[in-house]
Amino acid sequence: MRSIFFEDYRIGDSRDTWGRTVTEADIVLHAGQTGDFYPHHMDEEWCKTQDFGRRIAHGTLIFSIGVGMTAGEINPEAFSYGYEKLRFIKPVHIGDTIRAQVAIGGKRDHAKRPDFGIVSESLAILNQRDEVVLACEHLLMVRKRGGAEA
Amino acid sequence: MRSIFFEDYRIGDSRDTWGRTVTEADIVLHAGQTGDFYPHHMDEEWCKTQDFGRRIAHGTLIFSIGVGMTAGEINPEAFSYGYEKLRFIKPVHIGDTIRAQVAIGGKRDHAKRPDFGIVSESLAILNQRDEVVLACEHLLMVRKRGGAEA
Amino acid sequence: MRSIFFEDYRIGDSRDTWGRTVTEADIVLHAGQTGDFYPHHMDEEWCKTQDFGRRIAHGTLIFSIGVGMTAGEINPEAFSYGYEKLRFIKPVHIGDTIRAQVAIGGKRDHAKRPDFGIVSESLAILNQRDEVVLACEHLLMVRKRGGAEA
Amino acid sequence: MRSIFFEDYRIGDSRDTWGRTVTEADIVLHAGQTGDFYPHHMDEEWCKTQDFGRRIAHGTLIFSIGVGMTAGEINPEAFSYGYEKLRFIKPVHIGDTIRAQVAIGGKRDHAKRPDFGIVSESLAILNQRDEVVLACEHLLMVRKRGGAEA
Amino acid sequence: MRSIFFEDYRIGDSRDTWGRTVTEADIVLHAGQTGDFYPHHMDEEWCKTQDFGRRIAHGTLIFSIGVGMTAGEINPEAFSYGYEKLRFIKPVHIGDTIRAQVAIGGKRDHAKRPDFGIVSESLAILNQRDEVVLACEHLLMVRKRGGAEA
Amino acid sequence: MRSIFFEDYRIGDSRDTWGRTVTEADIVLHAGQTGDFYPHHMDEEWCKTQDFGRRIAHGTLIFSIGVGMTAGEINPEAFSYGYEKLRFIKPVHIGDTIRAQVAIGGKRDHAKRPDFGIVSESLAILNQRDEVVLACEHLLMVRKRGGAEA
Repeated sequence: MRSIFFEDYRIGDSRDTWGRTVTEADIVLHAGQTGDFYPHHMDEEWCKTQDFGRRIAHGTLIFSIGVGMTAGEINPEAFSYGYEKLRFIKPVHIGDTIRAQVAIGGKRDHAKRPDFGIVSESLAILNQRDEVVLACEHLLMVRKRGGAEA
Repeated sequence: MRSIFFEDYRIGDSRDTWGRTVTEADIVLHAGQTGDFYPHHMDEEWCKTQDFGRRIAHGTLIFSIGVGMTAGEINPEAFSYGYEKLRFIKPVHIGDTIRAQVAIGGKRDHAKRPDFGIVSESLAILNQRDEVVLACEHLLMVRKRGGAEA
Repeated sequence: MRSIFFEDYRIGDSRDTWGRTVTEADIVLHAGQTGDFYPHHMDEEWCKTQDFGRRIAHGTLIFSIGVGMTAGEINPEAFSYGYEKLRFIKPVHIGDTIRAQVAIGGKRDHAKRPDFGIVSESLAILNQRDEVVLACEHLLMVRKRGGAEA
Repeated sequence: MRSIFFEDYRIGDSRDTWGRTVTEADIVLHAGQTGDFYPHHMDEEWCKTQDFGRRIAHGTLIFSIGVGMTAGEINPEAFSYGYEKLRFIKPVHIGDTIRAQVAIGGKRDHAKRPDFGIVSESLAILNQRDEVVLACEHLLMVRKRGGAEA
Repeated sequence: MRSIFFEDYRIGDSRDTWGRTVTEADIVLHAGQTGDFYPHHMDEEWCKTQDFGRRIAHGTLIFSIGVGMTAGEINPEAFSYGYEKLRFIKPVHIGDTIRAQVAIGGKRDHAKRPDFGIVSESLAILNQRDEVVLACEHLLMVRKRGGAEA
Repeated sequence: MRSIFFEDYRIGDSRDTWGRTVTEADIVLHAGQTGDFYPHHMDEEWCKTQDFGRRIAHGTLIFSIGVGMTAGEINPEAFSYGYEKLRFIKPVHIGDTIRAQVAIGGKRDHAKRPDFGIVSESLAILNQRDEVVLACEHLLMVRKRGGAEA
């Protein structure tokens, strides 16, 4: 656990995560966790009759794994505020390997809380062909160094 | 499976889902699916020393369950385009019971594809005290009835 | 949730469910839930030496999935009484896709409770080659419309 | 693995299994395996408003666990033919501890296969108050010792 | 449950277990249970660039399954004291089938408790090519028959 | 991923991990992964009749979680060789919170491979009362800096 304050975030800083192969077991477990058993995710025979041809991972699965992969060291000065512009860009199939790229995209003051700022991180999930499959903007609320003294 | 076209969506239409109690098992399974074992979710002793006092469900868990709860009948004319304004408003703890409310919030043409429109649904997840714990705007891309003939 | 009374059930009415591909993960999870790690389900090498040649899904797994697939809208006037003539007709292997067919097979008064009747549903689980792999008769205890007034 | 032939089964022979406490995790995992997220199993708040007062384990969960608990030594001369008179007699709640009792209830020749007989086992699942919560009759098809030579 | 006392163990006695195919689902579940998402276990693309070429099961998974496979009848006079010389000898990949061999390797008095002795079991996990993939020595603390009277 | 060579390890260096509350779900999942459904882990009613009074987590569960908790940054110059002196010192019950302490305990040359050394780490798992519940010695095979040039 290491404190990183609002002032410490630098626009353009980026990091990559390790990769993870999306498995049939992941999809089965995510259906079980969410209750979404749509045939797009669960019925290989029906999928064969569709344009996409094979089972597709749930969008919430790829989002959840992607966010989880970026969970590194804990910053006690920050907490997750929300997400913007979450887009499911390409389907992820069983056997695809995904990884995440995070880049600091912007910083701004918080409208109502002078001791906090909003940091936006661009999160992109890529597959083994370097195609972006999911993108979103993560909003972090981060304490200001000065704000801590206020 | 029943076709609902862009023209069929009416702003203001809404629906409620059944509820679901968020369990310790859900959190354990979500940590296992995402790899996020932060002490906020997993370490009851550490949580006792924090303001929030108890383990908190992952934001992606509540989002995934909430989206899953709204998965009803399949509409072959629509697919999920993405989400906007995803906000984690209140913590969800073990034993809380959540349900989802979906309301048609807006409709607009798709900029590049004249045969499709964008429908936005407001999704709110509420707990057993009727407090909104998570909110977001779901964007659906829906085929136009006329568009199907174009 | 919509009330369907004993009088509303019509013999011969039937419905089909979506399909679901039975995965290796399903078998692993079911072994884990039941404690049945027989080599018929878990040991691919031993299975190769047997007539059936490949791992077989547990009968209770196919029954549980099949019953789960038929869980549609909730009828507050009915509850499950039990099952008759449950038969495991053909093995289900990893990668098979199953679906369920339910047909109202019979109706009779309840011997001791005049305000209830017994509805029997024929449940058949079929694979992707339209072979019945499991069949059973589901007994529902359903409130009579008149009975509600008695 | 030890061969037990049709002639070896004796009516009245019985055995008891170890017990197992049914947990919230079991219900969450069974909902996830079957897709049955009915509020009877998943929504503690709604259950409080009903006569039964608390979440109820799925009938297929208790059946699956009960059958799994009786899986002891493998008998290569027998295979499961099916079940009769499966009845859900009392609800099982989180924290209840169940065990199984199996008794040889009957034996008869197989109508079409002279080298096999049908053995019926009475299976009862009991809770920690010795109440039967589920009962059924298990049909085993078992090779005859003489039949093996026929 | 059957009492086996220290005096009853005979050096050289051995037993084999049934086999079990290690699945992708097992690895996914073990990563989820332990939080170890190292690319050696989870990232098929990265593994292709390494000498070992494919995902490898966690050592603790093979150890846990192997120990679990040897759990047979309960001996109320014995309890597990610990393990020595645990070695991960060969990698286990998805689809390998493992089984365990247990042999009584040694017996000695317990230094401080005259009513107990230490029995050491040699545990070897083998794959389908009869290669030892994991070996260890299991120490059991077992009550002496005489000691029970002391 | 950062290279740490044999020469870089310093005896006495130590690190602590985050904590993790051991849940009923963890035990249920570990029974399911290993097939060990002994009543010590699964039957609360039977446990009440024993000295230990409550369900106990599997030793392999605590070992697996403990090892997993210490998995930090990947060192490409090291791999796990095995474990010594694994001891289950105190039972872990549902709701206990465990954490791991790792200290470099010793270093020695490898008998047959001059380019490698053996580093032994002392691993202790502690509960929320700072009691050691499990201890072992982890052997790492680590490349020598000089050895890399040999």
